[in-house]
Amino acid sequence: MINDRERAVFEAGIKLGALYHQWVGTPISRETAASVEKAIEKAAILQPFVEEITVRLDRSLMTENRFGYSELSGLMYNVEIITRVGFTYCRAKLAPSISYPLMEIVEIHEIPQLSHH
Amino acid sequence: MINDRERAVFEAGIKLGALYHQWVGTPISRETAASVEKAIEKAAILQPFVEEITVRLDRSLMTENRFGYSELSGLMYNVEIITRVGFTYCRAKLAPSISYPLMEIVEIHEIPQLSHH
Amino acid sequence: MINDRERAVFEAGIKLGALYHQWVGTPISRETAASVEKAIEKAAILQPFVEEITVRLDRSLMTENRFGYSELSGLMYNVEIITRVGFTYCRAKLAPSISYPLMEIVEIHEIPQLSHH
Amino acid sequence: MINDRERAVFEAGIKLGALYHQWVGTPISRETAASVEKAIEKAAILQPFVEEITVRLDRSLMTENRFGYSELSGLMYNVEIITRVGFTYCRAKLAPSISYPLMEIVEIHEIPQLSHH
Repeated sequence: MINDRERAVFEAGIKLGALYHQWVGTPISRETAASVEKAIEKAAILQPFVEEITVRLDRSLMTENRFGYSELSGLMYNVEIITRVGFTYCRAKLAPSISYPLMEIVEIHEIPQLSHH
Repeated sequence: MINDRERAVFEAGIKLGALYHQWVGTPISRETAASVEKAIEKAAILQPFVEEITVRLDRSLMTENRFGYSELSGLMYNVEIITRVGFTYCRAKLAPSISYPLMEIVEIHEIPQLSHH
Repeated sequence: MINDRERAVFEAGIKLGALYHQWVGTPISRETAASVEKAIEKAAILQPFVEEITVRLDRSLMTENRFGYSELSGLMYNVEIITRVGFTYCRAKLAPSISYPLMEIVEIHEIPQLSHH
Repeated sequence: MINDRERAVFEAGIKLGALYHQWVGTPISRETAASVEKAIEKAAILQPFVEEITVRLDRSLMTENRFGYSELSGLMYNVEIITRVGFTYCRAKLAPSISYPLMEIVEIHEIPQLSHH
């Protein structure tokens, strides 16, 4: 009833929703952004069905408050994730779109299987 | 390329992943559980593509620590969500499965459209 | 070495820091704000040393994104908390100050004890 | 009315409460624990009044779930933080105590000032 395309897509949605809410609000600055990017990537890759993830946080939005730091906000996220279920891959992303941190399916790709004689 | 079934499934995944990580760790007790359930439901229903959500937190796991309260943990969640994209509905759930808070697609349902003459 | 004034202050700091980061990022709107306020208050009051808490979220900052909702952000918080250790009370607050969500001790109050003859 | 000892203690409480709730729930394993420790330390040190912080996460509690990872929970935290206000330092910690993740003031230290003639 539910196929691998749908399962791969579901897993991509879960991971993007999860990381967004886990990390939003973290104190951050241009100097520490790389450390947070790595920590998010490493946390995501632990989870089932995640094949690849790239997290890039927009430093141009990390304007300093009166104490000299910023806070990780939704529009800073540029994330691309690839999940896999069976032979089907889903590529999805989280990136700003018209001032909203939008999550979108980029493509679903099925690896053709050799037929058996 | 990407159909409404896949989009509805993606949105369900996002919402389940999001609420899990937003709310895990909240101080909770049997007396306040209903208030947290309502707050989670109301937050989820605000988001795009969410048609319905039911959140039930397992009070039997809310054992009191030495200060008399507990903390919302993954295995407490029993959530069912319905997302809709166009005429397609996805029902998904978050519930304990073999000691893991598992997110699963329950069903995808397409409402048949009348054909035009 | 460490007196009740300091302990009460420490507890107030813990609770304000905790609730800020637990709840920031929650989807919210003017219609659901009251529900979130109640849930935060009920979660805080469960914790040790908390006597009273009032949470008011600034609806004027809940501007709608393209999907019609907002996200709980630091500057929305107006929180006043009273902690107690022994006969000492600490009143502290979290409120915007020059575009920063500032946490401050408002007052520390010790209840005079009757002496015994 | 409120002295530097109390202010330093308040800031230590804020930071411990904040990091606890910001990071609890993060997917983690023994392999990624060091990355998360660094990210927490770097986030905390950005905040005002933080002089030093050491975060150690208890790997022995990182038992693998059925998908081979764990989730950062309260009892894993071993954190020591030093805050400073003026010439007063507060050392505080977050560590398990009788199955509860307890936050405590360890010591408050004032640096004696030279008097002027």
